[in-house]
Amino acid sequence: MSDLRIAVLGVGMMGADHVARITSRIAGARVSVVNDYLAEKAERVAATVPGCRVIGDPLDAIADSDVDAVLLATPGPTHEKQLLACLEHRKPVLCEKPLTTDVATSLEVVKREVELGHKLIQVGFMRRFDHEYAQLKALLDAGELGAPLVMHCAHRNPSVPPNFDSSMIVKDSLVHEVDVTRFLFGEEIASVQIICPAANSVAPRGLQDPQIAIFRTQSGKHVDVEVFVTTGVAYEVRTEVVGERGSAMIGLDVGLVRRSFPGTWGGQITPSFKERFGQAYDTEVQRWVDAVRSGANVDGPTAWDGYAAAAVCEAGVQSLESGAPVAVELATRIGS
Amino acid sequence: MSDLRIAVLGVGMMGADHVARITSRIAGARVSVVNDYLAEKAERVAATVPGCRVIGDPLDAIADSDVDAVLLATPGPTHEKQLLACLEHRKPVLCEKPLTTDVATSLEVVKREVELGHKLIQVGFMRRFDHEYAQLKALLDAGELGAPLVMHCAHRNPSVPPNFDSSMIVKDSLVHEVDVTRFLFGEEIASVQIICPAANSVAPRGLQDPQIAIFRTQSGKHVDVEVFVTTGVAYEVRTEVVGERGSAMIGLDVGLVRRSFPGTWGGQITPSFKERFGQAYDTEVQRWVDAVRSGANVDGPTAWDGYAAAAVCEAGVQSLESGAPVAVELATRIGS
Amino acid sequence: MSDLRIAVLGVGMMGADHVARITSRIAGARVSVVNDYLAEKAERVAATVPGCRVIGDPLDAIADSDVDAVLLATPGPTHEKQLLACLEHRKPVLCEKPLTTDVATSLEVVKREVELGHKLIQVGFMRRFDHEYAQLKALLDAGELGAPLVMHCAHRNPSVPPNFDSSMIVKDSLVHEVDVTRFLFGEEIASVQIICPAANSVAPRGLQDPQIAIFRTQSGKHVDVEVFVTTGVAYEVRTEVVGERGSAMIGLDVGLVRRSFPGTWGGQITPSFKERFGQAYDTEVQRWVDAVRSGANVDGPTAWDGYAAAAVCEAGVQSLESGAPVAVELATRIGS
Amino acid sequence: MSDLRIAVLGVGMMGADHVARITSRIAGARVSVVNDYLAEKAERVAATVPGCRVIGDPLDAIADSDVDAVLLATPGPTHEKQLLACLEHRKPVLCEKPLTTDVATSLEVVKREVELGHKLIQVGFMRRFDHEYAQLKALLDAGELGAPLVMHCAHRNPSVPPNFDSSMIVKDSLVHEVDVTRFLFGEEIASVQIICPAANSVAPRGLQDPQIAIFRTQSGKHVDVEVFVTTGVAYEVRTEVVGERGSAMIGLDVGLVRRSFPGTWGGQITPSFKERFGQAYDTEVQRWVDAVRSGANVDGPTAWDGYAAAAVCEAGVQSLESGAPVAVELATRIGS
Repeated sequence: MSDLRIAVLGVGMMGADHVARITSRIAGARVSVVNDYLAEKAERVAATVPGCRVIGDPLDAIADSDVDAVLLATPGPTHEKQLLACLEHRKPVLCEKPLTTDVATSLEVVKREVELGHKLIQVGFMRRFDHEYAQLKALLDAGELGAPLVMHCAHRNPSVPPNFDSSMIVKDSLVHEVDVTRFLFGEEIASVQIICPAANSVAPRGLQDPQIAIFRTQSGKHVDVEVFVTTGVAYEVRTEVVGERGSAMIGLDVGLVRRSFPGTWGGQITPSFKERFGQAYDTEVQRWVDAVRSGANVDGPTAWDGYAAAAVCEAGVQSLESGAPVAVELATRIGS
Repeated sequence: MSDLRIAVLGVGMMGADHVARITSRIAGARVSVVNDYLAEKAERVAATVPGCRVIGDPLDAIADSDVDAVLLATPGPTHEKQLLACLEHRKPVLCEKPLTTDVATSLEVVKREVELGHKLIQVGFMRRFDHEYAQLKALLDAGELGAPLVMHCAHRNPSVPPNFDSSMIVKDSLVHEVDVTRFLFGEEIASVQIICPAANSVAPRGLQDPQIAIFRTQSGKHVDVEVFVTTGVAYEVRTEVVGERGSAMIGLDVGLVRRSFPGTWGGQITPSFKERFGQAYDTEVQRWVDAVRSGANVDGPTAWDGYAAAAVCEAGVQSLESGAPVAVELATRIGS
Repeated sequence: MSDLRIAVLGVGMMGADHVARITSRIAGARVSVVNDYLAEKAERVAATVPGCRVIGDPLDAIADSDVDAVLLATPGPTHEKQLLACLEHRKPVLCEKPLTTDVATSLEVVKREVELGHKLIQVGFMRRFDHEYAQLKALLDAGELGAPLVMHCAHRNPSVPPNFDSSMIVKDSLVHEVDVTRFLFGEEIASVQIICPAANSVAPRGLQDPQIAIFRTQSGKHVDVEVFVTTGVAYEVRTEVVGERGSAMIGLDVGLVRRSFPGTWGGQITPSFKERFGQAYDTEVQRWVDAVRSGANVDGPTAWDGYAAAAVCEAGVQSLESGAPVAVELATRIGS
Repeated sequence: MSDLRIAVLGVGMMGADHVARITSRIAGARVSVVNDYLAEKAERVAATVPGCRVIGDPLDAIADSDVDAVLLATPGPTHEKQLLACLEHRKPVLCEKPLTTDVATSLEVVKREVELGHKLIQVGFMRRFDHEYAQLKALLDAGELGAPLVMHCAHRNPSVPPNFDSSMIVKDSLVHEVDVTRFLFGEEIASVQIICPAANSVAPRGLQDPQIAIFRTQSGKHVDVEVFVTTGVAYEVRTEVVGERGSAMIGLDVGLVRRSFPGTWGGQITPSFKERFGQAYDTEVQRWVDAVRSGANVDGPTAWDGYAAAAVCEAGVQSLESGAPVAVELATRIGS
């Protein structure tokens, strides 16, 4: 099966990151086309990908016969038109948030896709793919916390760009907790309230930061979210779900921590080497593949490392029998 | 640039895992050939990979013109011959531990590679590619712990296969800490002692488990390792380095924890969304690519999810102005 | 200086606990008088304390010449009268919450004490004396978090008595966070809102549990409190303060954890053996004193334990010189 | 029952600390006599305790009729003589470690006490009274870890006094782990080995620091101890016991953490307010007693604090009914 050919539209920070991701870490796909309203930027990015072309008009890029699917990382106001073009051409599209910039056009896009009769649009709420959120979701779905009642979230950024305004805290930051709520609880949000505490004195003048959002879901679940985007500390995203049979928290940099009957707190130990070192194996092999393709051949432990380990283990087996310390005899080091 | 064509030799648990990894998670490579001394197993694995052939003789597989590089996951006793064949054919090889099963042949392999004049062999000590070990190594190399003096390790498996004997605890388990010591400290191990405490009564009869290994490095650093392979608990791999200016521990399922002057303990918060959610982005895009290639097109948040988020955010912006709760108005749900 | 003679009024669970505390763990004080509206209960408690009498009328107990100070653990509705009697007799009083059961009489008590010209009344908000709250207060007062902006609290009980109703969640449980807010922030609460999520289905019928309280302080700081008194899990009291220069959380059973620039999380290591084992020394000496007074003389390590430790250390010093294992020679065990 | 009258012999740092402890935190005891070879120091300490005398000769102090029991905090070389005097006068004695400074005299003291026919001597291994060690002991005794097999300890001091030499690391520091081993495992240590790694370059010249001690108990259990007394960090005392059914660790500043089947790690949540705030109640009452005795009467929340809490709760109950924010109306502040 040949690789999926993807057009990446918009190669600002987010889009360029996706180009690098598809090229160097994703199996079964390659970037065949890039597009950006800054032509020069598109050229620069395309030059980093073997066999990748620039197409100057986004709608032409979508229509191109060398494109199987589209990744949309353009500014929000252009999404509606581009999504409709993807639907028209029956091309699957992964669209970075927002779907569109207002409710009416978002609903219009949904309707067109439904009329078409099969799904083509995926929205880039990436937290659903995060290991900790997936664990929390699995815990809830398995009923291990009982019925969820309350959720507490904190969403903290060290800083924001100069143009960030108070409503962007809602639309660009809080929107993630909107999706987290809908994802974890599997129901819609019925009402929302934003509380504005006295603002951080070191935030840009005029920015209402922090903000406290209160959601009430259709079945009456309570969610509160502290969004604080000028903390100066680091990127902190925390979510705690409190259910009828216990609670669980993620985002404290210590994995998922549960609190449950009979009065214990704690987490899961990685059950086997696959979970513990699976990512290490992936990294090892990817870096080795990259090294071989580049001609370096080795990017990791060498034959000498294998020899030295053998020498120590042989001494170890001797000591296992005698109980006494055994000196390790190594040849003079050869090679680099 | 075309994909690297890899022959995977040995498709037991480890090798089959590598075949799946290269096929579904690694960019720029594909498995072109598999080999196993059980022909049927090789056929079964090859059938899962588009364009992959079985070659019955491992040396033929190495020599094949459709093979750029070799991944060796065969039993240890066959390594020497296969490694030498890789060297002869100038093919890069990633060799699962051990390099070979004894010190003399290991040194022989090293010498042949040195004579050849450039490196082709990498050994599969994958811990060097683990995020936590990489962090610990970086901390040491930056001098943040001062000169390291002592290292404490625990290496615990819930259970081992029936044939596992006392010397395999040294050669198959402890060998990882041998490499960790050499990797983190950058020097050779000068002597090794194995202490045998009273054995676990629920371990298989005759198995000396746990074992305590004591390493002394060339410069006099002390390392102790508890290897305990029948704990019944989970897979636990812990490493603590104690230096002249503080200590750091990994493997407690809470990330790297440092202890340093002036009397504080703690870890690093993920600095930005790239570190926090980079893996989530990779998973999102890989799963989307897989969904598109399979014809499902979407494997994640749908257009409706994008619409619902827009509706909540619009209500949120209204509440930001009024301070009062605002009801979220959603259209009747359409589509699935 | 002779011991302070205390009358304990009300010897239900709380009062009886205070009697035991003063008798067996507090230096410089003794319970000279107890009182309860159940005479039999008062007699039973008095019998456990050498030299303690029962006085049947609480106002007589307050007035008694054998009473220097009063500890009030009677039901709330009786507090007003008893506090005014303490003021009249110029007797210092430690009053379990509430001061009185309504705002008007509370203010009346405050006024009478002010007229009197010196303070006699202390209210039993004991969290101010908790090590973690004291640490958090010290952190705030030292300015280490910058100006505090937001506080998140959780107050969870596994269960409540049968008669507990929705307003008692406010008056008996939430009242602690009211005091915590005033204590930590040093300002009054300007407004309060109680949000009622869908109730816990396993809570007693009619009990609105959990409740979410929102406080706004006079300077605009935001506080939210989850009060959930039928969790079935354990007693969980958590408080997080978010300031302009970082945040700190207590109550996760891992001590105070700070998050601050430049992106680190963690706590304080106990600086010396005094902090680490100070409580152990207190317990050691109190238990030894109790043992000697009871005639047992020893409640802890014996002379044999001292001898055995000496033997091991002597062997250790020999090994320090030789490096080799040294056998420990012990005499045949004598004594019990 | 009258207070136990204690003679404290030796009022250096340790002894003076005990005098303050008995006077201000221990119920049922008082210091009636102090003694020190520095007469002036004894006078200074005695002056802080009402009714306390100095007696210049330690044996006279032991014999004095105003002394019921003795606390020995004198230098080790004087212990033998003083302990024998205590035995002769049938006076219970709490003796700071060491019992005596060598094995032979320690055994002599044990024998004399046995001949006497009842126990009078307790040795000051205070870790047995520490909450975490007590928890760990209880866990072991309940069989929750299965049979213990291995113990890992770390004992780290930030620094030591100038005269501290290599053998004192064994006799003054490691001795605590000697007792911890005997206490937790309930058996004697059969052999001991001290391993000397390359020394900390910032330790005083000639001091072998760190040291690694290896104990083997009579039944073959393995214990290793890192003693490192010039870390520059803080006071760190860690103990991990590995048993046939799981492991438990204390001393990471996060309470006791267990690892057990089926692959979970974690701790205990404080089950009720008694465990969570018991210490706070003790502190509250002790500080109130001290305040009343000093004439200050109040050392904590005042009547105003009680009034303000009542006002907030009353507003809270109103909001519980209406759901809307309710302003808190406070009288003008009166009093200080």
